[in-house]
Amino acid sequence: MSQRNRRVVLAERPTGVVDDSTTRLETEETPELADGEALVAVRYLSIDPTIRTWMNDAPGYLPPIGVGEVIRSGGLGEVVESKSDRYAVGDSVFGLVGWQEYAVADEGARAMQVIPAQVPPTLALNILGLTGVTAYFGMLDVGGVKEGDVVVVSGAAGATGSVAGQIARIKGAAKVVGIAGGPEKCAWLTGELGFDAAIDYKNEDVAARLAEEAPAIDLYFDNVGGTILEAALANLALRGRIVICGAISQYNAAGGRAAAQGPANYTMLVIRRGRMEGFLVLDYAERFGEAQAQLGAWVAEGRIKGAEHIVEGLENAPAALNLLFTGGNTGKVMVRL
Amino acid sequence: MSQRNRRVVLAERPTGVVDDSTTRLETEETPELADGEALVAVRYLSIDPTIRTWMNDAPGYLPPIGVGEVIRSGGLGEVVESKSDRYAVGDSVFGLVGWQEYAVADEGARAMQVIPAQVPPTLALNILGLTGVTAYFGMLDVGGVKEGDVVVVSGAAGATGSVAGQIARIKGAAKVVGIAGGPEKCAWLTGELGFDAAIDYKNEDVAARLAEEAPAIDLYFDNVGGTILEAALANLALRGRIVICGAISQYNAAGGRAAAQGPANYTMLVIRRGRMEGFLVLDYAERFGEAQAQLGAWVAEGRIKGAEHIVEGLENAPAALNLLFTGGNTGKVMVRL
Repeated sequence: MSQRNRRVVLAERPTGVVDDSTTRLETEETPELADGEALVAVRYLSIDPTIRTWMNDAPGYLPPIGVGEVIRSGGLGEVVESKSDRYAVGDSVFGLVGWQEYAVADEGARAMQVIPAQVPPTLALNILGLTGVTAYFGMLDVGGVKEGDVVVVSGAAGATGSVAGQIARIKGAAKVVGIAGGPEKCAWLTGELGFDAAIDYKNEDVAARLAEEAPAIDLYFDNVGGTILEAALANLALRGRIVICGAISQYNAAGGRAAAQGPANYTMLVIRRGRMEGFLVLDYAERFGEAQAQLGAWVAEGRIKGAEHIVEGLENAPAALNLLFTGGNTGKVMVRL
Repeated sequence: MSQRNRRVVLAERPTGVVDDSTTRLETEETPELADGEALVAVRYLSIDPTIRTWMNDAPGYLPPIGVGEVIRSGGLGEVVESKSDRYAVGDSVFGLVGWQEYAVADEGARAMQVIPAQVPPTLALNILGLTGVTAYFGMLDVGGVKEGDVVVVSGAAGATGSVAGQIARIKGAAKVVGIAGGPEKCAWLTGELGFDAAIDYKNEDVAARLAEEAPAIDLYFDNVGGTILEAALANLALRGRIVICGAISQYNAAGGRAAAQGPANYTMLVIRRGRMEGFLVLDYAERFGEAQAQLGAWVAEGRIKGAEHIVEGLENAPAALNLLFTGGNTGKVMVRL
């Protein structure tokens, strides 16, 4: 049965922030299902910084979104029609649904993960979703956080940063310092999430405050890049590790990756014999179950908390994406359809 | 017995390249020796890029050279007077002699290493010296070079880079590409040292040539930083490693480390899940004997070759240092007194 499908497509590539000319709302008919396919009514979109990087015409870990194509995005939906044994009508599924009302799941490249009925959808997209799982592997496998470490997390009030800091806390870090924008977020980090200190980059001198709070950083989990990365490098401990998870301060740079601001003082890696390493959560796909089980247990024990920032309506997805860059969110940004 | 000692001191801190106002030639009397000390007549100075970094008033792995102090420098000399059982008159010694005619060795912080008589002094300062030993630990311990790796070395005609590339060759790298300035240096790399390819950064487009010669770099050994580091990042293989040995293109930056050019595309570390790591050879001091024995054996077998660029006269030490930044040298720069 064909449905009217509203979808947001890439109208033209942005040169800075996403604006009205970047995307276009279209309506089409949903396709007839082939054998092995299911039709998914999208309920929530997962709004992540990486979506902005996919809009650039630059090689990345996934191909750029083509002009005229639906905006690629993770999300959660409900199976409403199925010609596959893998998906039953009523199943809750997670996958790359895109910014649209209906997506097609199949049993191959567009397969989706069926979510157990007892998991609340917002938890599935947030702490148990890619952002939480990113924090898990970034902190444990790449960063190798261990007891006694002085840990600093930027983007700390975001979906990944907030979980990263709490994992460091659980693993016995000597001190966990979060960097976030605004006094409310900072109060949330220290008051609710158990961070030892928080630095408000919108109102404080990050370099000076880091030198006070964490003059010898064993592990820096970076979501932002730019001058905050430089401040962390300046305060790196001997053999300190830097995990590059993201660089949200640079994703809107006109000219793309080649025109971004690289860390001027990266030779602190020599002075302090440090390491800087990047990673992608998709490399850990076979271990997602392990991460989700552990994160779920920590949530149940009250040791990891999250926050959601829910935006209503598909047409507001571009504005929701911009929230990540203006710092308008605390915790996970989702769009509810 | 007191001697007249000519020495080169730091007159004022340079803001860019070292010029006439940076250093001053002075003459003083050598001090009377205390018990446990020896007087060393300096024969050769080891001219290394790191000397330029010590002239800046910035925290580093050693304190900055003070204004009015002799320029810190490695070098080789002969013991001419001794009140220590450790040093006999006639011994050849290596240590931080400084830019001067006479240095004092002691049995503590200013201890020097006695060099076996059969080692030619220029070999002791070059391949078996700190520059060669730096290549050894950087390639093997930090870079973990292994059979089949595609390896790129910048500053490849320099004292460290030339040894680094030859070690990669010995260890079975699939391809070793050197980046150097000028056709003569490039011809030396491929014709004499066994590099598979050489890129002339003064006359070729490094980014374009790297994309041809090494589009998937497993190990990049960086001596230069700047746009060449960016070109290597752009061509990093999945899980590629970058060893930061130096950043000679940036050492003369006015404003020092904080004003240097950081790699704009450092988020290629995320795209390619790469690692960038800095190191200092001084951390491996306890294993220098191992490195020197292995490097000496490779030299004896004809598998590692070096080149020397010898400048005559103490008063020309500042000009010798500048050779490293203009690329006027092939191989190790030394000043003979």
